[in-house]
Amino acid sequence: MHSKIYTFIFSLFSLLIFFSCTPRNLTVKPDDTVDNTGNTDLLYQKSIINTLLAGVYDGETTFGELKQYGDFGIGTFNELDGEMVGFDGSFYQIKADGKVYPVPDSMTTPFASVTFFESDQVITLSDSILYPDLCVYIDSLLPTLNLPYAVRIDGTFRSLKARSVPQQSKPYIPLVEVVEKQPVFSFENEKGSLIGFRLPEFLKDVNVPGYHFHFITEDKTRGGHLLDCVVIEGKIVIDYTPDLEISLLEQDAFYQLPLGEDKSNELEKVEK
Amino acid sequence: MHSKIYTFIFSLFSLLIFFSCTPRNLTVKPDDTVDNTGNTDLLYQKSIINTLLAGVYDGETTFGELKQYGDFGIGTFNELDGEMVGFDGSFYQIKADGKVYPVPDSMTTPFASVTFFESDQVITLSDSILYPDLCVYIDSLLPTLNLPYAVRIDGTFRSLKARSVPQQSKPYIPLVEVVEKQPVFSFENEKGSLIGFRLPEFLKDVNVPGYHFHFITEDKTRGGHLLDCVVIEGKIVIDYTPDLEISLLEQDAFYQLPLGEDKSNELEKVEK
Repeated sequence: MHSKIYTFIFSLFSLLIFFSCTPRNLTVKPDDTVDNTGNTDLLYQKSIINTLLAGVYDGETTFGELKQYGDFGIGTFNELDGEMVGFDGSFYQIKADGKVYPVPDSMTTPFASVTFFESDQVITLSDSILYPDLCVYIDSLLPTLNLPYAVRIDGTFRSLKARSVPQQSKPYIPLVEVVEKQPVFSFENEKGSLIGFRLPEFLKDVNVPGYHFHFITEDKTRGGHLLDCVVIEGKIVIDYTPDLEISLLEQDAFYQLPLGEDKSNELEKVEK
Repeated sequence: MHSKIYTFIFSLFSLLIFFSCTPRNLTVKPDDTVDNTGNTDLLYQKSIINTLLAGVYDGETTFGELKQYGDFGIGTFNELDGEMVGFDGSFYQIKADGKVYPVPDSMTTPFASVTFFESDQVITLSDSILYPDLCVYIDSLLPTLNLPYAVRIDGTFRSLKARSVPQQSKPYIPLVEVVEKQPVFSFENEKGSLIGFRLPEFLKDVNVPGYHFHFITEDKTRGGHLLDCVVIEGKIVIDYTPDLEISLLEQDAFYQLPLGEDKSNELEKVEK
């Protein structure tokens, strides 16, 4: 009987030592409910970023169709009419006036990335952090930089800069020329959500490598493509998406594009 | 009544002129039954080529699972044990002895590309042609070089060179070192099939750009990864696959790979 008590006390003591030695980061609360059941781990993208860079601004995919592939994501609209942000199953259009408009299912997109968002990892931010440092910090907590991730950050932003793109008319000019005249919006002490993705470098010819976020205010009235920010506090939720589906445009404007060149420099100008 | 007869004769005459003026190439017989019904236009690939180049030769995907994504394709096996070729729903293993072995559903692959093959375009070859010229010729008949295509060539080959790769054991060496000792097999006046894909340049970081074929003899006894050939006659069938799904490995060996670099030169050495 005594030996059982000793074993119990020893086990308790071992557990105590184990937990006190496990490395902890007070701001990190990983949620290991990784989902591996088919489609929910699929990041679906319509078209490739180099096509958008080249000025192909019209697609045939409706948001009604896009919703079959996800309830969360970012992208744009036909005629490059603003920045798209979607989460919790609703999609929003942020036009060149910086204001948010609803997106009917009949609207169409030439480029968008979506997934069915599920939490695989949660990180709580309680200290103020600059956007470039935030990216490095999240990177350090991810299991690998070789997987695509969907990322959502709900937080308070001391300052934030976002842009949108003005609706274009034919003949279209390349995206790098469009953004030369992009309207930029500034936010201070604003609550809101950053919605987007972190993609590996080896996807640079098909989508934006690294972090790519669109912002929307908590009251869903304003937002844009994130350029820079300082986060005061926030909750970062990450969805691991090891499967990527790229659905290419089936139209002459895409068929005829010369797509051989490396567009990294152009992409850098357009995104940052 | 007479006017109807004149209209009929006029119509017949117009049709005759139309057909005699339509540009024809006697070796080309396009079949425009393009299929757009979801999954059959999906090219599914397990892992990315740069992972294989880096020496990650083990995956967890069984051929039983792979068959859910296609009945046609190419790839390799765990421990890099030979070249895989699949068509008409059957998958074959061509080992380093150049001989063909059946592939049980329980076998696993670290890298493979498959699709449900459907004919979208047929080209009949009746003149002898060198492999590099054949590639240029097919390119000239495709609607665009910006889509992925599955390609099957059933034909007679005046000469053909193919290789396989020898089974590896850990610690694995990079693919470029493995192929330095690859066995090469020569065929003369052989009937057989080339099974493979033609992929756009913008997919070079995830798969083999351009044409990539594996060969199998008509009697399904020998074959390998195509290095070169001269075709005497053949039938080329092309399946347009505008959707591409990339399913990444979920294992430490992949997670820890540095995948930033351009591997084009290494890939060229390995494939050609």
